[in-house]
Amino acid sequence: MKGKFITVEGTEGTGKSTNIAVLEAMLGNKGIDCLRTREPGGSAIAEKIRNLLLRNEEEKPADLTELLLIFAARAEHLAKRIAPALASGKWVLCDRFTDATFAYQGGGRGLSGESIATLQTIVQGELRPDLTLILDLDPEIGLDRVSRRGKPDRFEKEAIGFHHRVRRHYLDIARREPERCVLIDAAGSPDEVGRRLLSVAKQRLPELQ
Amino acid sequence: MKGKFITVEGTEGTGKSTNIAVLEAMLGNKGIDCLRTREPGGSAIAEKIRNLLLRNEEEKPADLTELLLIFAARAEHLAKRIAPALASGKWVLCDRFTDATFAYQGGGRGLSGESIATLQTIVQGELRPDLTLILDLDPEIGLDRVSRRGKPDRFEKEAIGFHHRVRRHYLDIARREPERCVLIDAAGSPDEVGRRLLSVAKQRLPELQ
Repeated sequence: MKGKFITVEGTEGTGKSTNIAVLEAMLGNKGIDCLRTREPGGSAIAEKIRNLLLRNEEEKPADLTELLLIFAARAEHLAKRIAPALASGKWVLCDRFTDATFAYQGGGRGLSGESIATLQTIVQGELRPDLTLILDLDPEIGLDRVSRRGKPDRFEKEAIGFHHRVRRHYLDIARREPERCVLIDAAGSPDEVGRRLLSVAKQRLPELQ
Repeated sequence: MKGKFITVEGTEGTGKSTNIAVLEAMLGNKGIDCLRTREPGGSAIAEKIRNLLLRNEEEKPADLTELLLIFAARAEHLAKRIAPALASGKWVLCDRFTDATFAYQGGGRGLSGESIATLQTIVQGELRPDLTLILDLDPEIGLDRVSRRGKPDRFEKEAIGFHHRVRRHYLDIARREPERCVLIDAAGSPDEVGRRLLSVAKQRLPELQ
């Protein structure tokens, strides 16, 4: 049987990594074998593309270059890691996926949603996550959390207006696709947020009940 | 006035670099300012993507990854070098462009021509070369020329059937788009081929007469 494909999304500092670890532990307790991965990246070539995307060099890629690099990394990640894992019955937990592209490159940078949707079809065909958990938080609070982690990457360094546009785009996605997406309030302690996330995952996935 | 956009295409070892140099010298004699460049590559980030594409590493990118990386490099090359040069009135001489993608990734690898055409529209809009010179040669002869140049790249190392498919695709393009494309016989000495190419360029471009 094909595994489930679960993505965790959200703006900077919403606790995606922490919450994916919580979810992974719960799947482990239920005896469900899973692959935990992240975008952009997740395979050797895709991680090299990630480096091109995130580092702070003097020369910034054009917005369209950024978009195509993200989908190149995604094509590689899908072909080499995600699709084989799902086919073998493993569940896949992925830190960011195509919703992040709609939110960051579409909402944040203002690239055409139509071009993004076209690339989504070329790269993914019909594949979409079975469940997407969107961690929602005021970007000011999230960036404050992130600032304690060390040197910011090229996206974390964007102006606050960029992060508000990304958040609004995530809220739109959650409204438009309630069957697939659930918004989770990411304010509060890591324990509180983790409990909210597990409770939603249990409601949505009968295997976890 | 906008500059002319001229691309030179062909399978391995057809003499693209040599003939672009011949063309560049002729434009110089006519007092035409030009940018000579190449794909994949042609700008700092695009050259980094070129390295990802051409080097012989243990892990090969998936075909779709390769296609998206090529268009990412192209988007960058267009935004940073080609479009500004054309807008300033310079002519652009480019060693390979999107015809190479149709020939190598479409013809050679068997990727869908429709996906390539869709990416072409996303990245280039309506921009197409004003003139495309396709150097045509039996791939066996071309690869023999290339083998004297040193270590082959990832494309040069493909099996002979791949190179025959690429050549056939170039011939198809020349047949389908006779207004834009001219086939040039690349057999014979560099001097002979150079004379053929200059004679075609003069016929097609009134500025050179």
